[in-house]
Amino acid sequence: MALREDAAYNDITSRSIFNAGEVSAANIISRADQVLCGLTVARRVITRFDSSNYVEVTAKDGDRVAAGTVVLQAEGPTISLLGAERTALNFLQHLSGIATLASRYAEAARQTGTGVRIVDTRKTTPGWRTLEKYAVRCGGCFNHRSSLGEHVLIKENHISAAGSLQKAVQMTRAFAPHTAKIEVEAETLVEAGQAVDCGADVILLDNMSPQQIGECVTLIDGKAIVEVSGGIGLDNLADYALPGVDVISIGALTHSAPAGNFSMILGDRQGA
Amino acid sequence: MALREDAAYNDITSRSIFNAGEVSAANIISRADQVLCGLTVARRVITRFDSSNYVEVTAKDGDRVAAGTVVLQAEGPTISLLGAERTALNFLQHLSGIATLASRYAEAARQTGTGVRIVDTRKTTPGWRTLEKYAVRCGGCFNHRSSLGEHVLIKENHISAAGSLQKAVQMTRAFAPHTAKIEVEAETLVEAGQAVDCGADVILLDNMSPQQIGECVTLIDGKAIVEVSGGIGLDNLADYALPGVDVISIGALTHSAPAGNFSMILGDRQGA
Amino acid sequence: MALREDAAYNDITSRSIFNAGEVSAANIISRADQVLCGLTVARRVITRFDSSNYVEVTAKDGDRVAAGTVVLQAEGPTISLLGAERTALNFLQHLSGIATLASRYAEAARQTGTGVRIVDTRKTTPGWRTLEKYAVRCGGCFNHRSSLGEHVLIKENHISAAGSLQKAVQMTRAFAPHTAKIEVEAETLVEAGQAVDCGADVILLDNMSPQQIGECVTLIDGKAIVEVSGGIGLDNLADYALPGVDVISIGALTHSAPAGNFSMILGDRQGA
Amino acid sequence: MALREDAAYNDITSRSIFNAGEVSAANIISRADQVLCGLTVARRVITRFDSSNYVEVTAKDGDRVAAGTVVLQAEGPTISLLGAERTALNFLQHLSGIATLASRYAEAARQTGTGVRIVDTRKTTPGWRTLEKYAVRCGGCFNHRSSLGEHVLIKENHISAAGSLQKAVQMTRAFAPHTAKIEVEAETLVEAGQAVDCGADVILLDNMSPQQIGECVTLIDGKAIVEVSGGIGLDNLADYALPGVDVISIGALTHSAPAGNFSMILGDRQGA
Amino acid sequence: MALREDAAYNDITSRSIFNAGEVSAANIISRADQVLCGLTVARRVITRFDSSNYVEVTAKDGDRVAAGTVVLQAEGPTISLLGAERTALNFLQHLSGIATLASRYAEAARQTGTGVRIVDTRKTTPGWRTLEKYAVRCGGCFNHRSSLGEHVLIKENHISAAGSLQKAVQMTRAFAPHTAKIEVEAETLVEAGQAVDCGADVILLDNMSPQQIGECVTLIDGKAIVEVSGGIGLDNLADYALPGVDVISIGALTHSAPAGNFSMILGDRQGA
Amino acid sequence: MALREDAAYNDITSRSIFNAGEVSAANIISRADQVLCGLTVARRVITRFDSSNYVEVTAKDGDRVAAGTVVLQAEGPTISLLGAERTALNFLQHLSGIATLASRYAEAARQTGTGVRIVDTRKTTPGWRTLEKYAVRCGGCFNHRSSLGEHVLIKENHISAAGSLQKAVQMTRAFAPHTAKIEVEAETLVEAGQAVDCGADVILLDNMSPQQIGECVTLIDGKAIVEVSGGIGLDNLADYALPGVDVISIGALTHSAPAGNFSMILGDRQGA
Repeated sequence: MALREDAAYNDITSRSIFNAGEVSAANIISRADQVLCGLTVARRVITRFDSSNYVEVTAKDGDRVAAGTVVLQAEGPTISLLGAERTALNFLQHLSGIATLASRYAEAARQTGTGVRIVDTRKTTPGWRTLEKYAVRCGGCFNHRSSLGEHVLIKENHISAAGSLQKAVQMTRAFAPHTAKIEVEAETLVEAGQAVDCGADVILLDNMSPQQIGECVTLIDGKAIVEVSGGIGLDNLADYALPGVDVISIGALTHSAPAGNFSMILGDRQGA
Repeated sequence: MALREDAAYNDITSRSIFNAGEVSAANIISRADQVLCGLTVARRVITRFDSSNYVEVTAKDGDRVAAGTVVLQAEGPTISLLGAERTALNFLQHLSGIATLASRYAEAARQTGTGVRIVDTRKTTPGWRTLEKYAVRCGGCFNHRSSLGEHVLIKENHISAAGSLQKAVQMTRAFAPHTAKIEVEAETLVEAGQAVDCGADVILLDNMSPQQIGECVTLIDGKAIVEVSGGIGLDNLADYALPGVDVISIGALTHSAPAGNFSMILGDRQGA
Repeated sequence: MALREDAAYNDITSRSIFNAGEVSAANIISRADQVLCGLTVARRVITRFDSSNYVEVTAKDGDRVAAGTVVLQAEGPTISLLGAERTALNFLQHLSGIATLASRYAEAARQTGTGVRIVDTRKTTPGWRTLEKYAVRCGGCFNHRSSLGEHVLIKENHISAAGSLQKAVQMTRAFAPHTAKIEVEAETLVEAGQAVDCGADVILLDNMSPQQIGECVTLIDGKAIVEVSGGIGLDNLADYALPGVDVISIGALTHSAPAGNFSMILGDRQGA
Repeated sequence: MALREDAAYNDITSRSIFNAGEVSAANIISRADQVLCGLTVARRVITRFDSSNYVEVTAKDGDRVAAGTVVLQAEGPTISLLGAERTALNFLQHLSGIATLASRYAEAARQTGTGVRIVDTRKTTPGWRTLEKYAVRCGGCFNHRSSLGEHVLIKENHISAAGSLQKAVQMTRAFAPHTAKIEVEAETLVEAGQAVDCGADVILLDNMSPQQIGECVTLIDGKAIVEVSGGIGLDNLADYALPGVDVISIGALTHSAPAGNFSMILGDRQGA
Repeated sequence: MALREDAAYNDITSRSIFNAGEVSAANIISRADQVLCGLTVARRVITRFDSSNYVEVTAKDGDRVAAGTVVLQAEGPTISLLGAERTALNFLQHLSGIATLASRYAEAARQTGTGVRIVDTRKTTPGWRTLEKYAVRCGGCFNHRSSLGEHVLIKENHISAAGSLQKAVQMTRAFAPHTAKIEVEAETLVEAGQAVDCGADVILLDNMSPQQIGECVTLIDGKAIVEVSGGIGLDNLADYALPGVDVISIGALTHSAPAGNFSMILGDRQGA
Repeated sequence: MALREDAAYNDITSRSIFNAGEVSAANIISRADQVLCGLTVARRVITRFDSSNYVEVTAKDGDRVAAGTVVLQAEGPTISLLGAERTALNFLQHLSGIATLASRYAEAARQTGTGVRIVDTRKTTPGWRTLEKYAVRCGGCFNHRSSLGEHVLIKENHISAAGSLQKAVQMTRAFAPHTAKIEVEAETLVEAGQAVDCGADVILLDNMSPQQIGECVTLIDGKAIVEVSGGIGLDNLADYALPGVDVISIGALTHSAPAGNFSMILGDRQGA
């Protein structure tokens, strides 16, 4: 589909100029110090575009590479390589952008020394969830639930409809698969305490200050996984990664990562 | 597809708690000062999810709204509204993020007073090209070619394969539709001069310094549309928007725009 | 797609005979005492086939109905009703068959008085997982995990590859989302004990005798959810539903349910 | 699609534990005495999941195999084999279940010694018609028409709309392709006689007793193919398979066959 | 899909000029004396493009209309009407072209007075078979089999592989559904005689002269349907439509019909 | 999709007769003097139908071949070759029909000696635009714009809505990508003059007589590309191809080309 939207089979410039029988080598090169993701997808784009293209991947998803590193080598009809170029690069730059941002969060988490785990959210580009969550893992972070169907997350709306947090937990426990954990969003210390009492598996402390979070951690006391979210970035991550905070979820990982930077360089041409 | 990847029809939390017959109102609210794009798509997501959802859009794509503005009002089964929520917001935040970034570039262009036009590139998220290019226009910028099939852009590879720029232009003119303009990428003043001589419709000055660009503009002297690209951002746009530069192309518009910020608020529930 | 495979738009018999302008009423009737599932889907089949068909559903998914009950009433061009008939009935009979079998298991579970929960498996008809799991719930049973991506289930292969159960649990805990529970398959009392020690959330006792299960339940002592599977049917369910067994998983729910039984009866025709 | 619904590319258990470079052998084994169908589909599932998987099929669709028989051997990355396992088995068990039930009907038909042919109906699982009808043939039974577009079947509704059976036959003969046979459903001896007089190619005796069928066969006297349906199973097939009955149609072949039984066993692992 | 290939949502000309709120009326007008087919499809194209378009069809598929006749009236946003225009017309002109050519053949057949039926073949535009066969019927001709799966047609290859025509007929009778007729292609009088002896339902006389056909008809003597094909057009149809020839098949009906001729005229605009 | 609509996997005739293990050679042969297009598509149809089919293409798209020329050689299971035959031929005959008609127009254009270029239109078969436009090029003609999104074409409706031609040109220049040329449809000499004054890149002279066209050419005087359309065929092309006419557009190229003529011949069979 991506190749079709680029009219990649009808590149009027290259088809004007290159002989159909001409064959080239081409390298995809990293233009920055970045973490790779999407090499397998890029290879599939190039070989699906023309099954006579040969592709060798010279690095792995998850590798951190310096600017100038060759990450993929291809050989095939010049027209096919140029036709697939932009689409392959677009996959690579989008996913590597996410992996690279994730790697910065993962490094920041490591530096806190608390063992906190950085996770993504469901704030993904529609159509891209599986790939973007894979990119997050390539960057060294972790995944939150992938969909509404596999994990319970009780928010304020649910509590008010159920009548109380306790009832909400009971209702979801009675309905949801026994394989689903139950997470409760708490906005105050009182709610966090109620969540513990109800046996929540995970407690999400949303939009709290570090101080409030500290109090909640003390109260929860290891009886549930503590997840924190809201207003957290690379600059203030250390403030929120208090001992006892297990997980910090960051929407920006998938929705606001700047693109990675790659280009394709054509090498020797034969049969011109 | 986007709804399916979120398992939106199997929201185990909401289906545990909300009565199937219960109906709610819900508002989508802007959480920032931003330019809107994607309201029509968001409406279609919500009504396709459940055709008994009723949606009224209270702002238009392209509008700049303040934080707190209600941009979409919906009514329908609570379960349906919550099931469609994340998917609708993901479309809206991705497209509005692009529109908002585009609006900043459009404003910067206006301030130069030169009439320069900011355009996007083919560096789009695979599968999203049509929507992302629409978002660019909603933000007040313009589109470059949409695909390889509709416009000729001659780069270094093409020139070397053809033997000379002149031959490359001749070959594309002979092959491409008469409706396609011919653009030539020039990296030096000499190349720019050759492009003028060959009758190029557009000349792309790639990765030049403002001074080099100035010299090229003088040389081209209105005989072709002058497009500039490479290393240009909001901070240095004014340096490149010299009189005589018609178009500046910015890949970041579509590949690195931070997401917009919206949330959905549930209102009165009936039939609980 | 289902309508196309039946060539429903080219019913050469009905199109030979019925006037295009002729309109009929039609009822879908239950031909057995059964639990309903698929009414919404059947309605969509009929209205999508011809948007001038009007459909009213006169029962709900999950209802138990007697033979002879009208479950859906339709009005529209006779040709459209007959064209959509078989496809609509095929959806209804497949899903109601599953719901009806599930209801028998749910009733058997109720009669044990132990609160045991009957769940499905991933042994579903390819392409039908979401609908079949919905049918299981309509029959009063529950769902196991929907896919490999949302829940950890450690089997013998994993243990042997990891070196020990303990290592396998550690490795999955380190990799899987914090929202995923960890289930361990145990084939002996010793393995069940190890699973408890490793902090497994769910322990699957596979292919054990009731006596072995009893011993495991005593050992596990409420420290994990106890799931039982293997060779269990309606006839011997009570033997396995010992106190302390929380969940019994039954593949036959989705892979071997006999079809439900429905037919469509054409009523008054007008404009013949 | 089937692989996607199983999140087969995101098997969080196996990906936690198995090394990406590790390669295994795996066998699919029949767990019962059953007739095979779906081996080609299963092979395609495994190789499409990962084109580096190598699959050899060691039995053929239509073979009857004993429990313990290896029917398919695969080699490839352990993660790929486990990811594709359930989906491949789900295809195999569904189709082999139908083939096995069909083989029992085919054997029962052979034992009557009348040459009667057992055929399926259009009561198939939506989306599966072509594959299920193929499974029926693998089991030694035959197919009825595949869709509404290729064969005329005149029922009571058609007769009443046309005014008489004779007119209904005339109308369909005038409209339908000359390649389509005309079948008439008869519920009484009188109707069967009329069908013969009208030159029906096939006469369907629906819901008649064996005695009524015998009278109809005598009346029809070889002038049309005699098809019988309604309330016929393995237990009473012999009662209906009277000399002169050419075809018996059985909906249960495709809508109520219990699943076949297969499992995949992982063998030697290398590169762990 | 058709709308997408025309970039109908991105009509850069109309979107430059027409106000988004402007509404128009538009008529689709026949530009020739022709038989209509595709009005329902054209309506669906226009309303699917924009659900706020209102369409009324003022003629029926199968109608013969004079040049100047309004066949469809639409109202909606001017931009939507112009965006859908070309795609709707392309459907209409392709299908009406076939219907019009079919009507000429049907008329020619009527004039022979022999009751011969003109039918299409499987030589259809890939992806269009169902619609093109419908267009053939709108023009007053008939359909041959729609696919390889519903009717037996034994050609020379089959006979030589089977060993004899008789064996080929036996093999197909033993394998094919009892609902399928058996047709045999005969190239000589001898083969036609053999086909009769084998009980073929239809005999196809391919590439014979009218004289040979006459001899075959005499030989067949009403014992099978006689179909004739090969080198037959409007100019020589009467030569081949001998008494006793039941069916003449014409590939050109679907593969070489010149397009119909329609245009869309914009009427009053409001809200400009 | 095309293979599925032919039920190519369920060829009841061939599957009755040919042994599954039997392998044949087959040639596709041109049955006329024609220009080829679609060989690559035909090869893909045959190999996708059964990946064990081997195909070699013995001519190239764009070649003119005599009747009797072998254009494609295949080897594979007889059943697979016969199953794919009709679908492969249908692609080939449709596209070669267009290429052959285009080659006649290209030859006629050459004979005028004016260098006029014959181009297609958007009057293509829905779903086939890319392939049909490729066939036009194979025949030696050229393409007009591929979609509404890549080129501006101002017609009477646009002029009247804008208020004047000048305003219409200004509005589109302000909105459309800088890469899009602006074409104006002129029906009179006055309009042609206005179009020149507005700086139109292309002027379309629609439905004018050769004399009017001559006057317009004189007036335009090389300041814009001159395109002519309306009522032009092979018989009167020379009348319209006046010196100064750059382009003639012909809808019939894609909407009314008679099909090419090919057949497949089965050769030696082995393993029968």
